[in-house]
Amino acid sequence: MSLDTENTQPKAVVLLSGGLDSATVAAIAKSDGYQVHAVSFDYGQRHKVELKAAYRVALQLGIQHHKMISINLNDVGGSALTDSALAVPDYDAQSAEHIPITYVPARNLTFLSLALGWAEILGARRIYIGVNAVDYSGYPDCRPEFIKQFEVTANLATAAGLTGEPFKIIAPLQTLTKAEIIQWGTRFGVDYAQTISCYNPDEQGRACGRCDACHYRKQGFMDAGIPDVTIYAPE
Amino acid sequence: MSLDTENTQPKAVVLLSGGLDSATVAAIAKSDGYQVHAVSFDYGQRHKVELKAAYRVALQLGIQHHKMISINLNDVGGSALTDSALAVPDYDAQSAEHIPITYVPARNLTFLSLALGWAEILGARRIYIGVNAVDYSGYPDCRPEFIKQFEVTANLATAAGLTGEPFKIIAPLQTLTKAEIIQWGTRFGVDYAQTISCYNPDEQGRACGRCDACHYRKQGFMDAGIPDVTIYAPE
Repeated sequence: MSLDTENTQPKAVVLLSGGLDSATVAAIAKSDGYQVHAVSFDYGQRHKVELKAAYRVALQLGIQHHKMISINLNDVGGSALTDSALAVPDYDAQSAEHIPITYVPARNLTFLSLALGWAEILGARRIYIGVNAVDYSGYPDCRPEFIKQFEVTANLATAAGLTGEPFKIIAPLQTLTKAEIIQWGTRFGVDYAQTISCYNPDEQGRACGRCDACHYRKQGFMDAGIPDVTIYAPE
Repeated sequence: MSLDTENTQPKAVVLLSGGLDSATVAAIAKSDGYQVHAVSFDYGQRHKVELKAAYRVALQLGIQHHKMISINLNDVGGSALTDSALAVPDYDAQSAEHIPITYVPARNLTFLSLALGWAEILGARRIYIGVNAVDYSGYPDCRPEFIKQFEVTANLATAAGLTGEPFKIIAPLQTLTKAEIIQWGTRFGVDYAQTISCYNPDEQGRACGRCDACHYRKQGFMDAGIPDVTIYAPE
């Protein structure tokens, strides 16, 4: 805690899922000169190994303030990522244009809202999020229009947004390909072996190698010309 | 469940806190011809009696679908409504222009986001919320500008908002005084004895009579010329 008061850097809240993208964003926020406050969500996701990955990433990047917020999105239902009655499908190029069953309704909106509340309490005015509009799964709440509009709403929703320096939502990966993200993160010192992207990992946290997220991640390492450090479950 | 399939009315999600305003809104949504799906939030509030009140209100109004979503806003902290280390102040006319300590950062934004996710799953396109910009406690997320911007954001955040009939956020109390709200609700058959507004009720759910919320409620019944059915704790 004494470190908090000694640290004169401005604060930023970073949404840290334990995946490749958010780990890269956390490293970027640090490199931008912010004192990083990471937040992860225990939202009833099937892939709990993601939360362990978030802890490892925070540790690896030297982030000293990491908060876990519990919210039961199972109560809301309707997605293969939170509802164990629905199966996670393999990647399918034909269906890549549609919004997949792994879409969790209004998830980024809910997470950003909670991050905003925490940022207001901390006195942080920057919120970093690893959404990406290129190699993504077609989720509406990953698009730049959504992020931009959320920023407007955030400043109307809060006391801080009305009176002080306005909130800014920073999404530095927005226009990058997965390969570019991996190249940036590698430069900023991210150890991707600590991260997990898979929607359907086994109990040891090994990636399935077959879902959407595995597909984009594999391809990203390949295109970046960087060895893929991901641990895959045996076929 | 069979009722759901037989009911051909369009669906609406109503944020139901157990307070006077949201009970009125639920009655209005019913009278507007919607099949009402009520949602309440167990968010670590001190005044848990509020949740019991929400059940009673749903029952009294004949709402058959009522969902409780758990989210721990204590994890976020910073408000007298969720943090037991902070005292709920008495109403003070001098300080009524400032944002009070009972403000929960980004609460309405978070609740609306969760309600939106549920609405998307249900196939509802209307979300009713009992915010009020007249006799309110100065919360930024009760203002019409906020509600309007949230609607724009909601339609960008969701799959349904992109492809189908857009979401509409309906805040029918926005320009009404507390007295007018009580007059409307009484006409629509709300039994206000079932509701609770107090920020600091005792264990039996009796109102303190001294906080902001009690102040506005008392005054509302008085101005409406309707007997105050609220049960107050003895001084």
